[in-house]
Amino acid sequence: MDGPLHERVAADLRRRIRSGDLPVGAAVPSESQLCEQWGASRGPIRQALATLRSEGLIGGGRGKPPVVRTRTMPQPFETFLSFSRWAEQMGHQPGQRTLEISRRPASAEAADALAVDEGEPVVQLLRLRLLDGVPTMIERTTFVWDAGRWLFDFDCDSGSVLAYLTGRGVDLSRARHMIDAIVADETDAELLTVSPGAALLRERRRTSSADGRPVEYSDDRYRPDLVSFTIDNSQQARPALLRSPLGELP
Amino acid sequence: MDGPLHERVAADLRRRIRSGDLPVGAAVPSESQLCEQWGASRGPIRQALATLRSEGLIGGGRGKPPVVRTRTMPQPFETFLSFSRWAEQMGHQPGQRTLEISRRPASAEAADALAVDEGEPVVQLLRLRLLDGVPTMIERTTFVWDAGRWLFDFDCDSGSVLAYLTGRGVDLSRARHMIDAIVADETDAELLTVSPGAALLRERRRTSSADGRPVEYSDDRYRPDLVSFTIDNSQQARPALLRSPLGELP
Repeated sequence: MDGPLHERVAADLRRRIRSGDLPVGAAVPSESQLCEQWGASRGPIRQALATLRSEGLIGGGRGKPPVVRTRTMPQPFETFLSFSRWAEQMGHQPGQRTLEISRRPASAEAADALAVDEGEPVVQLLRLRLLDGVPTMIERTTFVWDAGRWLFDFDCDSGSVLAYLTGRGVDLSRARHMIDAIVADETDAELLTVSPGAALLRERRRTSSADGRPVEYSDDRYRPDLVSFTIDNSQQARPALLRSPLGELP
Repeated sequence: MDGPLHERVAADLRRRIRSGDLPVGAAVPSESQLCEQWGASRGPIRQALATLRSEGLIGGGRGKPPVVRTRTMPQPFETFLSFSRWAEQMGHQPGQRTLEISRRPASAEAADALAVDEGEPVVQLLRLRLLDGVPTMIERTTFVWDAGRWLFDFDCDSGSVLAYLTGRGVDLSRARHMIDAIVADETDAELLTVSPGAALLRERRRTSSADGRPVEYSDDRYRPDLVSFTIDNSQQARPALLRSPLGELP
């Protein structure tokens, strides 16, 4: 990973927390230890620790050494549109396993979201998304036929479906996200390696063309112990959202 | 409720859906029926129905009459900072029941969030928030002592705590929100009248002064069958977030 030293230090610590090398409750290496490890001055080390503190991953301190508080990775809305891009920015390896791609009649829910008739053919994609090899999210996406048909010629394990579709001329300009919570069903539990009945964080998303024609509808379920969503806002300024608009997806 | 006719029609339909007068699966009154009920032309009626459709509350149509799909109310991020204001904008009656206000030593989690020492005195507020009398959200808020002490002179059942504190000169300029999902514990289940083990939508929020000094930390748990969060974004423009900055809370 390239980038400023403080970002590399932060990414390395996040990776160690995530992997369990630094478990919840463990003391974070001291500033001196980190300075030595990285051959760095205190400035970037302190900046890295401040970042992790603001993300809630570490806490304590103020006299005592800081400790690991949680393994959960925050997903800022700035990178909300691309799982792969978010993972890479956090210094993690994104992955995906395509479980099914099919042409089938639109369900009532998909028909509503995509403004097609119930039973009209649509393309459905079921993918498991991974972070550093750990199952993290299940993606159930339905595409209108005109857009989704391209996917039968694409290896959905190879990278970003949205970037591929954009390259085929599919207009994915606008998105509406609905966020709620849902209890894991048996499929969710098996794929995400949680107990049936665990609470999952769900994002349902409808993506449309610039003129408002729906293109895809997705039901994405995250393990909340691994990912949460974050948003910052302030009285002075609008939040710095969407620095990575959909058209720039990797 | 004042406002344009189409908003009043939409608010009335939302209220009927929420109350169960129009249960999930029921047909929505036809355009002609609504025109007659409101003494209105088709324009505003269609606009109201389009709004509810975009919110996911109703679906179907395209030849067949639309039906109710869900009771869940979307909470846009524009109004994310004030439960009361959001409820009012949706044509609902917000309410609150203060269950406890106390001075106590900061827990490890609160100490991290508020950048105080563990055990330092803080003010904790536990409130149940209601929509049209229905328990909808549990708010567990911890204030630094300097800000929270004002609350012992305030009737927390009477309205917006944040607006009251702003009036006392407390600076609540910036907020960071973390959104995840959590299984209801026994207290949650009893207060929100759900089964223990139900999935709840959680927002944890830290609000700070303009110069970054933490003022409050809150853990708010919503019934996801009653409220979800929504956000819109597009390639062309930044999302229209935060039209209601914290300083303007009612």
